[in-house]
Amino acid sequence: MLNVPEAKSEDITALMAEIGRRARAASRPLALATAERKHAALVAMVEAIRRGEDAILQANAIDLANGEEAGLSPAMMDRLKLTPDRIRALSDGIRTIAELRDPVGDVIAEWDRPNGLHIERVRTPLGVIGVIYESRPNVTADAGALCLMAGNAVILRGGSDSINSSSAIHACLVQGLKAAGLPADAIQLVPTTDRAAVGEMLKGLGGNVDVIVPRGGRSLVERVQNEARVPVFAHLEGICHLYIDRSAKLDMAVPLAVNAKMRRTGICGAAETLLVDRAVAQTHLVPILQAFADAGCEVRATDEVRAAFSAAVPAAEADWSTEYLDAIISVKLVDGVAGAIDHIDTYSSHHTEAIVAEDAATVERFFNEIDSAILLHNASTQFADGGEFGMGAEIGIATGRMHARGPVGVEQLTSFKYRVRGNGQVRP
Amino acid sequence: MLNVPEAKSEDITALMAEIGRRARAASRPLALATAERKHAALVAMVEAIRRGEDAILQANAIDLANGEEAGLSPAMMDRLKLTPDRIRALSDGIRTIAELRDPVGDVIAEWDRPNGLHIERVRTPLGVIGVIYESRPNVTADAGALCLMAGNAVILRGGSDSINSSSAIHACLVQGLKAAGLPADAIQLVPTTDRAAVGEMLKGLGGNVDVIVPRGGRSLVERVQNEARVPVFAHLEGICHLYIDRSAKLDMAVPLAVNAKMRRTGICGAAETLLVDRAVAQTHLVPILQAFADAGCEVRATDEVRAAFSAAVPAAEADWSTEYLDAIISVKLVDGVAGAIDHIDTYSSHHTEAIVAEDAATVERFFNEIDSAILLHNASTQFADGGEFGMGAEIGIATGRMHARGPVGVEQLTSFKYRVRGNGQVRP
Repeated sequence: MLNVPEAKSEDITALMAEIGRRARAASRPLALATAERKHAALVAMVEAIRRGEDAILQANAIDLANGEEAGLSPAMMDRLKLTPDRIRALSDGIRTIAELRDPVGDVIAEWDRPNGLHIERVRTPLGVIGVIYESRPNVTADAGALCLMAGNAVILRGGSDSINSSSAIHACLVQGLKAAGLPADAIQLVPTTDRAAVGEMLKGLGGNVDVIVPRGGRSLVERVQNEARVPVFAHLEGICHLYIDRSAKLDMAVPLAVNAKMRRTGICGAAETLLVDRAVAQTHLVPILQAFADAGCEVRATDEVRAAFSAAVPAAEADWSTEYLDAIISVKLVDGVAGAIDHIDTYSSHHTEAIVAEDAATVERFFNEIDSAILLHNASTQFADGGEFGMGAEIGIATGRMHARGPVGVEQLTSFKYRVRGNGQVRP
Repeated sequence: MLNVPEAKSEDITALMAEIGRRARAASRPLALATAERKHAALVAMVEAIRRGEDAILQANAIDLANGEEAGLSPAMMDRLKLTPDRIRALSDGIRTIAELRDPVGDVIAEWDRPNGLHIERVRTPLGVIGVIYESRPNVTADAGALCLMAGNAVILRGGSDSINSSSAIHACLVQGLKAAGLPADAIQLVPTTDRAAVGEMLKGLGGNVDVIVPRGGRSLVERVQNEARVPVFAHLEGICHLYIDRSAKLDMAVPLAVNAKMRRTGICGAAETLLVDRAVAQTHLVPILQAFADAGCEVRATDEVRAAFSAAVPAAEADWSTEYLDAIISVKLVDGVAGAIDHIDTYSSHHTEAIVAEDAATVERFFNEIDSAILLHNASTQFADGGEFGMGAEIGIATGRMHARGPVGVEQLTSFKYRVRGNGQVRP
């Protein structure tokens, strides 16, 4: 039903280079677009999706039929499936982004020099963002809208499973761009499912991609991080730790631990390892582990933990570096905050770690000595999320230390330049 | 005289991997070092250089003798040469860095969430910085000191011409680190002149280099930008433009233009192209060009400019994209600020551009529509410099849009993390 042009493999390089050139060309007017125009485009997209709901559902039906035939797993079929409710959620996401404050043009810092020069550091768009994702068609809308709000052109490369759904959603986004008088090339969807297109994007399309954001599972992120010749905003995994200090209140620790692990086990901010201060093993360990067990969580633990809590199964070395994304937690006793820091230093993916403690000096030490993107005190690791941080929306969470770290929201999708005002100054 | 261990070529990979591991290991205590301790180390380095002056000069004599034998150009020999005055300048540079405010731990932003969470974005070091440079031995001190102040470990890879001088300076830096109780591996100098070592650094030493800073000529920067698998802070060239608008005051434009080009022709912020608004060609063009000629600057210009100023020689297409780094300027008439923006969009290296104008709307348009790292109004392009920006010192100027842009000072050599404080919050 949908006309998805198929490119021959040998044409992929040329096709992608052309997409890169168009994105760069579109990024220029986009960088100058007012907040009002970007808002208007996003609102028009919501409208177009409302009008296009039937077409999107029809396209999705094709993807679902193809997926059925290809024998996709039930989990993948679920990720692929769109319903009127899910399409509404997708529209609501764009509406939320439309209400964000436009960061472009913000003066981040300004100062005067003794010679009278006034210097401003001003936010600008990053340029062109490449988003590589898998089966979730909603990323088309999320990522397209968020990049637009930051004044960036975006090249979307969705998974082959969802190509028809993504194309139908993309058509609505383009309608929104056109309605607001913005270039249609501001949001391009790669019109081929050839995997060589991903390779081309990772090479940067001749300098026409400024950053790549992978949205998907470990194997996708790993490929992107290994092959990309341009910067990447991503995290490979979220091996998040929760440490219960000797100064922790037990009645705070128990619900917080259960929430950190069990609220949603499949998100990157879910806790994977519980570290308990040996000093409170007698009082705190069993109540927390019992709460996990009551919540249906498997406990994998060291021998000394198992001696206190026989329902636990033995943890192997690999458990400390496993992101379960499931109702399983690894548990270990450590010698105070120093022991927790040592363990985290060794095994963490530098995403998110939390401490439950009342002693301020202990908390400061945890905060200072651990170099992860997000550190929390007396709060669940599941708050590691751009929405929960008040950013309105995020394109993902980054664990690198370059440019963006933690939730990547609209501000993190910007760069800056300097504006210097003088009155004839020459340099001596 | 100096004991520079020579590694066999087949050992380079192992040697560099070990240097990377040591740097990463050193970066941990370094990230926690107090401002006082870093200050003490820098002051001790100054002291060690004062004591080591004779040894540095002797090492430099070996480099100079080797350079003579190798037939280095007079310019390269001059870059290589150290004198007591130059060594003092190098010490003074470290002392300036020692007086900078330590940015690590600064709270860059903080806010509260409706659920009571308090979120802080806090500066952290970047990690490990690789600096690749050519013959100037002073980069050893500059780069080593600046990276240290930002809490980063640094791997220095100097040119083979200056290896003895760099080693002698490096020995003084290590004395300073040790005197302050900081790890000696915080500042490592690659002890081999094998070019394969550069290739290893560009590959990132197994994740143990976070960013590469090339300090040197175009061919070095080009190689680094093309081959690096880690982020790079650099500019390939500074094709900087000066635009004289119809609203410019002539008595401001003339000295400013001469300064922008001629104060120092060899720096990246020197103007390479003068664009004059056609509307004031009659009044402004010849006085400015005459001032260039009087200052000993060759003018390469379009035919219509040459018709007005016969001393100009013809400009070829290549002139518009040439960084002369010499007393030569290319000159063209443009149709107002729109014409200037078009030309700059096409030919600029996105480093620095300046406008001379009195009309505020014209200046805003220039500032908004040009996406270069530094834009100046009624001020010389030669102000494109970290010191002139008040940053105290810079490791270079970057034209990329990721992380650092413009002068890269101590703040730009940092990253950040989030600290979130709660009182038992769980995510609903």
